[in-house]
Amino acid sequence: MNRIILSNIFTRLTPSIKPFTTTTLPLISPKMASSTAESSLRQTLAAAQSAVDAQAAAVRQLKSSSSSADTAAVNAAVESLKALKLEKAAAEEQLRDLIKSSGGESKEEFRQGVINTLERRLFYIPSFKIYRGVAGLYDYGPPGCSVKSNVLAFWRQHFVLEENMLEVDCPCVTPEVVLKASGHVDKFTDLMVKDEKTGTCYRADHLLKDFCKEKLEKDLSLSAEKVAELNHVLAVLDEFSAEELGAKIKEYGITAPDTKNPLSDPYPFNLMFQTSIGPSGLIPGYMRPETAQGIFVNFKDLYYYNGQKLPFAAAQIGQAFRNEISPRQGLLRVREFTLAEIEHFVDPNDKSHPKFPEVAHLEFLMFPRELQVSAQSAKKMNLGDAVSKGTVNNETLGYFIGRVYLFLTSLGIDKERLRFRQHLANEMAHYAADCWDAEIECSYGWIECVGIADRSAYDLRAHTDKSGAELVAHERYAEPKEVEKVVITPVKKELGLAFKGNQKMVVEALEAMDGKEAMEMKANLESKGEVEFRICTLEKDVTITNKMVTIAKVIKKEHQRTFTPSVIEPSFGIGRIIYCLYEHSFYTRPSKAGDEQLNVFRFPPLVAPIKCTVFPLVQNEQYEQVAKQITKSLIAAGISCKIDITGTSIGKRYARTDELGVPFAITVDSTSSVTVRERDSKQQIRVDIDEVASVIKEVTDGHRTWEDVLQKYPTHSSASNDE
Amino acid sequence: MNRIILSNIFTRLTPSIKPFTTTTLPLISPKMASSTAESSLRQTLAAAQSAVDAQAAAVRQLKSSSSSADTAAVNAAVESLKALKLEKAAAEEQLRDLIKSSGGESKEEFRQGVINTLERRLFYIPSFKIYRGVAGLYDYGPPGCSVKSNVLAFWRQHFVLEENMLEVDCPCVTPEVVLKASGHVDKFTDLMVKDEKTGTCYRADHLLKDFCKEKLEKDLSLSAEKVAELNHVLAVLDEFSAEELGAKIKEYGITAPDTKNPLSDPYPFNLMFQTSIGPSGLIPGYMRPETAQGIFVNFKDLYYYNGQKLPFAAAQIGQAFRNEISPRQGLLRVREFTLAEIEHFVDPNDKSHPKFPEVAHLEFLMFPRELQVSAQSAKKMNLGDAVSKGTVNNETLGYFIGRVYLFLTSLGIDKERLRFRQHLANEMAHYAADCWDAEIECSYGWIECVGIADRSAYDLRAHTDKSGAELVAHERYAEPKEVEKVVITPVKKELGLAFKGNQKMVVEALEAMDGKEAMEMKANLESKGEVEFRICTLEKDVTITNKMVTIAKVIKKEHQRTFTPSVIEPSFGIGRIIYCLYEHSFYTRPSKAGDEQLNVFRFPPLVAPIKCTVFPLVQNEQYEQVAKQITKSLIAAGISCKIDITGTSIGKRYARTDELGVPFAITVDSTSSVTVRERDSKQQIRVDIDEVASVIKEVTDGHRTWEDVLQKYPTHSSASNDE
Repeated sequence: MNRIILSNIFTRLTPSIKPFTTTTLPLISPKMASSTAESSLRQTLAAAQSAVDAQAAAVRQLKSSSSSADTAAVNAAVESLKALKLEKAAAEEQLRDLIKSSGGESKEEFRQGVINTLERRLFYIPSFKIYRGVAGLYDYGPPGCSVKSNVLAFWRQHFVLEENMLEVDCPCVTPEVVLKASGHVDKFTDLMVKDEKTGTCYRADHLLKDFCKEKLEKDLSLSAEKVAELNHVLAVLDEFSAEELGAKIKEYGITAPDTKNPLSDPYPFNLMFQTSIGPSGLIPGYMRPETAQGIFVNFKDLYYYNGQKLPFAAAQIGQAFRNEISPRQGLLRVREFTLAEIEHFVDPNDKSHPKFPEVAHLEFLMFPRELQVSAQSAKKMNLGDAVSKGTVNNETLGYFIGRVYLFLTSLGIDKERLRFRQHLANEMAHYAADCWDAEIECSYGWIECVGIADRSAYDLRAHTDKSGAELVAHERYAEPKEVEKVVITPVKKELGLAFKGNQKMVVEALEAMDGKEAMEMKANLESKGEVEFRICTLEKDVTITNKMVTIAKVIKKEHQRTFTPSVIEPSFGIGRIIYCLYEHSFYTRPSKAGDEQLNVFRFPPLVAPIKCTVFPLVQNEQYEQVAKQITKSLIAAGISCKIDITGTSIGKRYARTDELGVPFAITVDSTSSVTVRERDSKQQIRVDIDEVASVIKEVTDGHRTWEDVLQKYPTHSSASNDE
Repeated sequence: MNRIILSNIFTRLTPSIKPFTTTTLPLISPKMASSTAESSLRQTLAAAQSAVDAQAAAVRQLKSSSSSADTAAVNAAVESLKALKLEKAAAEEQLRDLIKSSGGESKEEFRQGVINTLERRLFYIPSFKIYRGVAGLYDYGPPGCSVKSNVLAFWRQHFVLEENMLEVDCPCVTPEVVLKASGHVDKFTDLMVKDEKTGTCYRADHLLKDFCKEKLEKDLSLSAEKVAELNHVLAVLDEFSAEELGAKIKEYGITAPDTKNPLSDPYPFNLMFQTSIGPSGLIPGYMRPETAQGIFVNFKDLYYYNGQKLPFAAAQIGQAFRNEISPRQGLLRVREFTLAEIEHFVDPNDKSHPKFPEVAHLEFLMFPRELQVSAQSAKKMNLGDAVSKGTVNNETLGYFIGRVYLFLTSLGIDKERLRFRQHLANEMAHYAADCWDAEIECSYGWIECVGIADRSAYDLRAHTDKSGAELVAHERYAEPKEVEKVVITPVKKELGLAFKGNQKMVVEALEAMDGKEAMEMKANLESKGEVEFRICTLEKDVTITNKMVTIAKVIKKEHQRTFTPSVIEPSFGIGRIIYCLYEHSFYTRPSKAGDEQLNVFRFPPLVAPIKCTVFPLVQNEQYEQVAKQITKSLIAAGISCKIDITGTSIGKRYARTDELGVPFAITVDSTSSVTVRERDSKQQIRVDIDEVASVIKEVTDGHRTWEDVLQKYPTHSSASNDE
């Protein structure tokens, strides 16, 4: 698919490059798919098999060589064969275990634990469940919805507010012309095959990928060559053309998974949801596949709004749509999702960033191109070094990488399982200056959650070409600059006489010459008096004489430079970030009695769907009143909290709220002060009733940490109060 | 359209009732369209016309009666005719003025002023402008986007957080089955006519409405009867069927506005954007026309999440879509919009609300049915009284009306231009218990911005019927109750012998009998031994003998009652609220020199897109440093602010920021303290630099008012500092 499919879900396509798709997401990096341990085990197994075969041949030979065979020798040979077979079986067992653990049986178990909890506590709900749902559509239930608003509110604070970005909000319904300009109408496709009898559709690359993976996992007798071949296919199948994919599917005899029927050849399927705008049925439209186009088409207005100054960034949060052929990977690959996108417009001649020094000291896992192609793994690097050494193309790109790192880790993403991976040359659009993906490791592998691309002037130019609107910026010179210019002046009267109705086309063609062409014509006209000149719009040559045009070189004073800005685009898949956050936040710990494992989400207060629960220690009118009063103050301060006066045991209440990731619990055990318990440490402090709402507000707003609070207030430990 | 079009954009449809449409929005209440002043002026004009006609006849008579006519008498009669003509002209002038002012020329001028400012300052942008846009699609530009997030954040605080609602977030893409159940697939339509030659589409009711309005405005010679007829048509055209509309269009000779071509008969056009889910093209889907269905289909999960307790409310904020035939009224009638909807589920036997006393004291304009039908206007009423007198159906509905009132007025909606209008009997769905719309008056008339409906059990029942999922709640009895039940036990063996393959249908029909039918059958079987019984699914009668079924009355103990909850639905059109807010917030005041009118938006700090600007009084390194430091503290506190170090005059800066509705300006005029100016009063105070961020935070968060602050800090008046 090397000319059709974009290598990156967040990178946008160009006519010469390819739309987003899963396939090309290196969920598990190709470099890591076949570990050295596995390959050495496969060699051991192959050797053991050869030894068994050889010994079996020896035994047969011994038995048949003479009837007077030495029974003892035969027996010894058979014993030896048995031992070799055991060895082989042991090697098989080892290989099977290795495949299980790396291929992810334990990961799948962990994932199942997380997903069960998420679904049971309504973090998400398969959409339209009572109608048996629709693949790839999910609802955020109450705690999930709350996590999502918290993540988006923090995104607004961290990016829009702190970077003074211009936020816009554009419709999802988009007329065709816009997505024609952006390339989506022609190139936003995945390759599909159909069951030739039932018409069921499959993603071609998925079938091939599944085939290779299953073969590698289940068929232990594969030769080393075959293993290498299948691993190679897995590594490069994202680059396959329709023809190459089709050929492999035929070669491996892959059939429809459900029916075993033969499959059609692969063909492109456009992933946009199509609709029609207005009653006439004549205006085709699509549900936007990304939010970025809404920003590009508004560039001119936004530039004026910003006082015609660069750089500036516009941002948008909103729904995007992708009509997947067959959605898989649960919450990671869905048909409708929330994107948060930034388009930072910058002078291509100056991509420095004044705030870069604020992030230059950061160190985190980076995975530049060189490490990937030399089969190494990601390394901790200093961001300042990465930019100054040119690993990262420019300061602005580097600045956003740093800000994205701070954003994700503030949400609770584990920094050891977050890396910034640079796009390989073949993954990147031809116009792009540099691209890095923030990838987060979860049970599905390394997942691309944020794309950070320097897309140069591509998008603005595409819309200028299609719409005719000049999407450009100007740089005023402090002093006017003298510039040599070639001025072409067609003599319309002469041209009219000579070309009549075609005059306009000739004039346009003359004016369209570049400086070099014009000076050549000038020279020819001066030497020969006339010249043959091709008029493309007329599809013929005409004769231009020296009366018809004057061409002169003049020195002009210019007051400004006009240029198409470059755009640096950090694009966030909010649902993916949230899912990874769930996995990174999930752990289990034994109940007090030790008889069961309890689930906990260690959400930071910033993200937690409910910040605080309030329990009266015992069912009692006075305590209930206090609990209600505290709840009221918390709500007035904008803190989501939950009161529980059911009289359930404290242990059970903690178990319930830990599973929702509630960071703080207030137990009302007196009418003057209360106990506040922190979820992960289970530490408890005593705080006065009048103070407790503001203490909780400060720790949830991030103005104080739990450690600060611990220092200030007396700690508390009471057997009755603990679980 | 009385059976096809819903009378209310927020009321949902049922098979026997009609989908949302503008037409039925009483933008200008029919009762108010023809004022008594206008009708008396029309009478005066008609009388003047008669007098002119009579006098003209008299003059003609005089002139022709004899050639020896008394010239003086003729001259006097002519003078008198001239005087009568002047009187008539004056009456015409008066009538024209009245129509202008009530029909809204001054309103249109005001609106143009608001809209120009909104568009120039990028509060909104026509979407895809560089491609000449798409009717009915608008972007929120930076300040508009910020106003929108502020309104939504306050909505979450005021409703979700304070009422402890369960917020969910469901996809826009919705499979057909869901919208089939809700009635949208069949009934969400407007009546359309087509230009028979060009195929251009128009809304049938719009054409008729425009015709009547234009006639009333421009044709001063209309007879009183004709005026009454046209006003009647305007008042009732929302109720017209396709046939009635078609007949009126023919009667009035209405043609296509652009071409004057004849028009087709009206026919229904479905307003949903249609699409297709997945690659096969076999799963039809739509972009949701409202967010409510996402909540209904999740009722069961949400009920469990809430501990199986009623009442509880679920809420959702999200995009909704409506493929308008021909969008008009700018930002009020768009094809994609943000809805915020609440579904409050309640036991139909108990619609009391524990927090009703908190809003019972509120007094505001209410417009109950009785006042509307008796041609009176809205009256200030006490909400507690309205509920206790039964004007408002129940406490929960009343509670939400009160909360909506508080919500809208906190945003800055003028309480004198806000009324709660009850639906007339013919506007309301047959199942609805009561409906009230929060209507806000703006230059377009009274606009429905929030619908608050008690929809009884309709929606949950519709989804239960379609999906088979029991969307019900239970009430556990404190003690089991004894209930008399009729138990029907078909004897399958006998039925099998008698009916063979039809046995199943007979068994089902027997079991489906209600108690009364069954007891009748029991009596007949006992007296006659057999009975004829209609099996609908077989479309025939069969003979049932007393061996085939036993029927008995038993006393059962029931531990709980199972019922379908009622739903009370407040539904907010966020874009409409914001547009009305713009109009209510807009005013002009003279510049200091008095030479021009400056625009101001008096947004409350809660809503203001930018809370604060920071200006150094003069361009100076020290002041700039202070300004930057203050900006940094404001941003860290989450306050959107803008620094302006351009050196523009203070007056110009104020004019710029007033037009964005920025409530506070900080002028840095020393390195220890600064001047803070409030936008509307232009009052100024002096605050220490270290304190200023927290002062601004408190007034923008609503924890202090400007008046509080004025008391605490010294006021400041300096000529240099004022505009």
